[in-house]
Amino acid sequence: MTKDNSTSLIITPDQLLEHWQGHRSLTRRVIEAFPDDKLFTHSIGGMRPFSELALEMIKMASPGISGIASGKWEEFGDFSGDDISLEVNTKEELLKLWDWSTEQINKIWSSIPEGRFQEKDVAFGQWEGQTWWHMFYFIDNEIHHRGQGYVYLRSLGIEPPFFWER
Amino acid sequence: MTKDNSTSLIITPDQLLEHWQGHRSLTRRVIEAFPDDKLFTHSIGGMRPFSELALEMIKMASPGISGIASGKWEEFGDFSGDDISLEVNTKEELLKLWDWSTEQINKIWSSIPEGRFQEKDVAFGQWEGQTWWHMFYFIDNEIHHRGQGYVYLRSLGIEPPFFWER
Repeated sequence: MTKDNSTSLIITPDQLLEHWQGHRSLTRRVIEAFPDDKLFTHSIGGMRPFSELALEMIKMASPGISGIASGKWEEFGDFSGDDISLEVNTKEELLKLWDWSTEQINKIWSSIPEGRFQEKDVAFGQWEGQTWWHMFYFIDNEIHHRGQGYVYLRSLGIEPPFFWER
Repeated sequence: MTKDNSTSLIITPDQLLEHWQGHRSLTRRVIEAFPDDKLFTHSIGGMRPFSELALEMIKMASPGISGIASGKWEEFGDFSGDDISLEVNTKEELLKLWDWSTEQINKIWSSIPEGRFQEKDVAFGQWEGQTWWHMFYFIDNEIHHRGQGYVYLRSLGIEPPFFWER
């Protein structure tokens, strides 16, 4: 491990938001690529169907960025003041929830205080670390599960969207 | 999209290296979790076996970080001065190559010039963008394919390592 403690700029907050929303746009297209029923039923090796993986991302995304911004870590139900529910039964409802989440993230992002990403906090009262780590965890977890969605799609004979298209 | 062009620090180079190597340590454990033969043969939906996905990561990792550090983008064969080959036929050989790659990354990392991650470059003569984007692509691509390895393992009845353990 290098001993260099440089604070050389790697990525700005604007770039990180764009990077994340680029990933989220790709995940949205993966949701769309599933046949309506398979989205809620198809599974390999006892794993959760892709709808549930997408709901995990949604439960993490806007409540998570809200926690980073405010220091208040609330579950989805407590977090949302809007008339929005995690009870989705169709692809259309899931996509609507996804888009709601997208807007929430964009809205909350600009309220993240300067220097906040280097502060320590306990995400959702459970995971201790600097908030950049939590932020990357939200993104990485999405990439991880979306990669699994790619296998689901391939196993159904469906070509997933290109990974590099955001 | 927020119009905030703040350069508020998100992650330092040291933290990014540790983050990446944490991911790479997890991927190493995923390689290890495969039965020797299945690593090279098991596939779902016509996808590549996990050994080939891991080799893609290896071909991207040290040559990629070398390109970011030096501006010279060389393929694995040209890049490596060492007596090291991508021709691997056993899990042990693959892990040896993985560990070689880990050392290379650590060695090259500290030579990345200040401010380099915000510079534009054409990665491997093909992908134009700021080098932070290329860097994240290397990591994200690994997470993406490793997530696929999780499905392979589950379909073989094998429990993968915890995603959050790095």
